[in-house]
Amino acid sequence: MSHVLILGGDGYLGWPTAMYFSARGYKVTVVDNYFRRHVCDELDVGMLYSLPTLVERAKIWYEKTGHEIKVVIGDLTDPELMRSLFTGDKLRYQWSIGERFSGSPETVIHYAEQPSAPYSLMNYKTANFTLSNNLIVTNNLMFAVKDLSRDTHIIKLGTMGEYGTPNIDIEEGWIDIKHKGREDKFLFPRQSGSIYHTSKIMDTDLLWFGCRVWNLKVTDLMQGPVYGVETEESKIDSRLKTIFNYDELFGTIVNRFIAQAVIGYPLTVYGKGGQTRGYLNIKDTLQCVHLAEKNPAKPKELKIYNQIMETFTVNELAKLTEQAGQDLGYNVTIKNIENPRVELEEHYYNPSYKGMQELGVKPHYLTKDSMIEMFKLVIEHKHQIKEEAIFRGIKW
Amino acid sequence: MSHVLILGGDGYLGWPTAMYFSARGYKVTVVDNYFRRHVCDELDVGMLYSLPTLVERAKIWYEKTGHEIKVVIGDLTDPELMRSLFTGDKLRYQWSIGERFSGSPETVIHYAEQPSAPYSLMNYKTANFTLSNNLIVTNNLMFAVKDLSRDTHIIKLGTMGEYGTPNIDIEEGWIDIKHKGREDKFLFPRQSGSIYHTSKIMDTDLLWFGCRVWNLKVTDLMQGPVYGVETEESKIDSRLKTIFNYDELFGTIVNRFIAQAVIGYPLTVYGKGGQTRGYLNIKDTLQCVHLAEKNPAKPKELKIYNQIMETFTVNELAKLTEQAGQDLGYNVTIKNIENPRVELEEHYYNPSYKGMQELGVKPHYLTKDSMIEMFKLVIEHKHQIKEEAIFRGIKW
Repeated sequence: MSHVLILGGDGYLGWPTAMYFSARGYKVTVVDNYFRRHVCDELDVGMLYSLPTLVERAKIWYEKTGHEIKVVIGDLTDPELMRSLFTGDKLRYQWSIGERFSGSPETVIHYAEQPSAPYSLMNYKTANFTLSNNLIVTNNLMFAVKDLSRDTHIIKLGTMGEYGTPNIDIEEGWIDIKHKGREDKFLFPRQSGSIYHTSKIMDTDLLWFGCRVWNLKVTDLMQGPVYGVETEESKIDSRLKTIFNYDELFGTIVNRFIAQAVIGYPLTVYGKGGQTRGYLNIKDTLQCVHLAEKNPAKPKELKIYNQIMETFTVNELAKLTEQAGQDLGYNVTIKNIENPRVELEEHYYNPSYKGMQELGVKPHYLTKDSMIEMFKLVIEHKHQIKEEAIFRGIKW
Repeated sequence: MSHVLILGGDGYLGWPTAMYFSARGYKVTVVDNYFRRHVCDELDVGMLYSLPTLVERAKIWYEKTGHEIKVVIGDLTDPELMRSLFTGDKLRYQWSIGERFSGSPETVIHYAEQPSAPYSLMNYKTANFTLSNNLIVTNNLMFAVKDLSRDTHIIKLGTMGEYGTPNIDIEEGWIDIKHKGREDKFLFPRQSGSIYHTSKIMDTDLLWFGCRVWNLKVTDLMQGPVYGVETEESKIDSRLKTIFNYDELFGTIVNRFIAQAVIGYPLTVYGKGGQTRGYLNIKDTLQCVHLAEKNPAKPKELKIYNQIMETFTVNELAKLTEQAGQDLGYNVTIKNIENPRVELEEHYYNPSYKGMQELGVKPHYLTKDSMIEMFKLVIEHKHQIKEEAIFRGIKW
């Protein structure tokens, strides 16, 4: 079975992805520098429950399933660490049972980025960190694959936020432009709403350069905000659950709204609430990444998918949260606050997202029932929610 | 008179720009970390003549003209240094006559980037350096202006290389796209031929974000390769001449061809030589930057000019060099070598470049006569040319 290397394997998506592939017989190595945990501690940001370390999780996973997930702890902005994952030179596992998997990984799934728009805009230091972390990790990966393993398929997580909210239909990554009687194909135009999202535009440009010039094989998954916690694998043991942030910095909107509803904190809708985005369940992220792995890009190809399952306005999400909460006996209120972000609050939004459906993804849609399930998990840990962590007023 | 802050003031364009504005009565501060000089020393790259330090140059300039150019030596990837240029806090001049100029600079001209495509592709370390230097300096500048001086006009040097060689006409920065019956205006699509050029695409995206979100005023000058050495100001004293590289790394093509012709080294044309680019004389760079300064962008506006005066194929430049050389009695030969770069060697190329002409630029065209003038300068320093520095075979 092939070897999948997961960069950022401790994160919200990284850890569930590691279990998902491991459960399906893949050889899995995860790498992480605990950035997300450390910054959550530093900023006293809200996590719904504490997590075992990555090594502890890998041990629990092994005890429960007999599958090994090798763990490397380190900073992938160090090019030598990145290269060691391909060559084995001076590679040190924090946890591993057997020998190093022979050869280079067939697939790298790259989640090792600072993923928060508000964090990227706290100040010039967090902005610099976001740009340099996200670009240097991506560049180190690109050069490692170019120099050491051209057959490796790179799957990178992009974001629908790269496109912003243009007044034309959003295609899946590419657009044919006719101009003054001539024609060419280009990356779909992108202009985003934060420094984080801009760093992802840059990543895409960088890897597209690598495809054109070095025949790399890259899949870029333009993902919408992900919600949800439990996956098939996390249900094996409650300690295997992924990180759950309910704060403004790292909490994605659905997760955050549910936490707000549970503690009687009004749902904070920014501005008019007409902002429309594409969303998906964490279980569908796993399906999509797996489908991308099974259908790799060809050499010189940058394959782009718009990884969303449906679209909602912020107001619709607030309404749905309200209804689910009411069913459970909560008195949920919605509060439109002054928008701390510069963004259109009412706009055209019509993204295409057929690619993953053609590959066979089976979407989990966001309904009152699926929300009620998430409510139950949050209610279990209700006493851990720190109200003051929810809203910090980071503006841009 | 207003204050112009020049980042990268020791470089090929930075120093002539400093003298140009200083001669016209502007208050001028230059900042540089000597990256270009240091890397030329490290890599034993060819400089036609050695240069006084930036402080020595500023002193010579002052002696000859009575104009002061304040000099700060430091690394602008340090955000505190960048911010000190706006606040004065802990700002230390390497050379300065009077007090600090009061207030913030009205205009910042940002040349402080690693400017070589081959250098950016020597290896993963130089690639990382290029990305992080160019982006972090730009981001530090953007945040300093946002946080400390929103009225400051940022003039950034971009490059025509951001656009690559698309099959449609290249507009000046922006394009209206009609798609499925709807319409919007976007940055002109960009895909470039090196990591350096990709870093400039990123810079543009970053500053465009700053314009949209913080109402910054930015002019982005998409410049073609510049040739030439002497400017009106450098003629005042021979020690004021700008850096002249004739090597593959930092030598722009015309300068390099002339050096090759003078020492009887065949002109190295990469591949078929049909690569077409837009070019301009260094004197026209100065005119354009000055016109940009006098016609600042408005708040929220990213003004883009394609800063070229004419286009040539590589073959045409080689021919012109041959003719100029022959007139001076040199036996110039042209050699088509295997292209070390991944690029189209024959392609459509039709860039618009009306903006600067509408502002009143008076172009200096590249002719046999203007080439002969450059030959004379190179011939003076002929004994300094190290043949082995010309071609190093950096491939991508």
